[in-house]
Amino acid sequence: MDFIIRAATPGDCKDISRMIMELAVYENMPDQVKISHEVLEQDGFSKNPFFQCLVAEVPEQYRRTEGYTVVGYALFFYTYSTWKGRSVYMEDLYVMPEFRGKGVGTALMSKVAQVGKEQRCVRLQFSVLNWNTPSLDFYKAKGAQDLTDSEGWHVLRFDGEALDKLAQEAPKN
Amino acid sequence: MDFIIRAATPGDCKDISRMIMELAVYENMPDQVKISHEVLEQDGFSKNPFFQCLVAEVPEQYRRTEGYTVVGYALFFYTYSTWKGRSVYMEDLYVMPEFRGKGVGTALMSKVAQVGKEQRCVRLQFSVLNWNTPSLDFYKAKGAQDLTDSEGWHVLRFDGEALDKLAQEAPKN
Repeated sequence: MDFIIRAATPGDCKDISRMIMELAVYENMPDQVKISHEVLEQDGFSKNPFFQCLVAEVPEQYRRTEGYTVVGYALFFYTYSTWKGRSVYMEDLYVMPEFRGKGVGTALMSKVAQVGKEQRCVRLQFSVLNWNTPSLDFYKAKGAQDLTDSEGWHVLRFDGEALDKLAQEAPKN
Repeated sequence: MDFIIRAATPGDCKDISRMIMELAVYENMPDQVKISHEVLEQDGFSKNPFFQCLVAEVPEQYRRTEGYTVVGYALFFYTYSTWKGRSVYMEDLYVMPEFRGKGVGTALMSKVAQVGKEQRCVRLQFSVLNWNTPSLDFYKAKGAQDLTDSEGWHVLRFDGEALDKLAQEAPKN
């Protein structure tokens, strides 16, 4: 199957938004999605974008009845390790089920790695749910290490009222 | 004890670099630190900085024999959730042992939360080692959730040869 990987444009935000929801459904957390395609467009395609995005596109002949030719995406941004320096974080990697097993996911992820290396990043990190064995196997087969297993890193979060309360405690100076 | 929280300047990079190493020693991974203060200065204080940093400073009268008045730091950057939007990630939070228990850590973290909220971030995330009970207790007492425990998120990483190999697989188009 032919496909291309290209940088997303504002016009892709409806497709990306649709696939963000498909991924959240797969991860059993569809109620968590609060982002519209308009917000994605603002946050990713204005002067100081909060993220970058690649999409996988198939030629017209593969278009399904639903009419999609954008069939996968990888959304990422730059982070920083105080031990190793510049890093890239892949927030989402998704390929529509009917287009899997054809190298689309690998191509998207490899391109994120390549773009990151061009920016002198020394790490590519991402998060996976512990029950998502197909994804964990896919990543590990390519050489990814599970740092939660090997070093014991846990992800913590403040949001909602806990974040509001924390921000209110900030010193005035 | 009086202290102020302020944005780091390039001149603070030697102090930050020293404390990055102190934190790595505490986390039992001092060999992991490959970042010099010169690199920190380039990556954090040039036109498109990879991170932002706050420092805690005490007045001259608290200066120790070693001569430090910068006694803590919080290093952070912006990330993005495709479910919730703009987020802030706190890579490091550190206070020198002899200055702990005086509200310095809370002040640094609260300030990160406040700066994040000013940028309309809805989450503050960070990672903690599972054996680091004092830190886990500190964060949880302030309302942080452990997402690895509650939802099963694991952190994965490509680096070194695995990252090189992945980048080489990227499609040419």
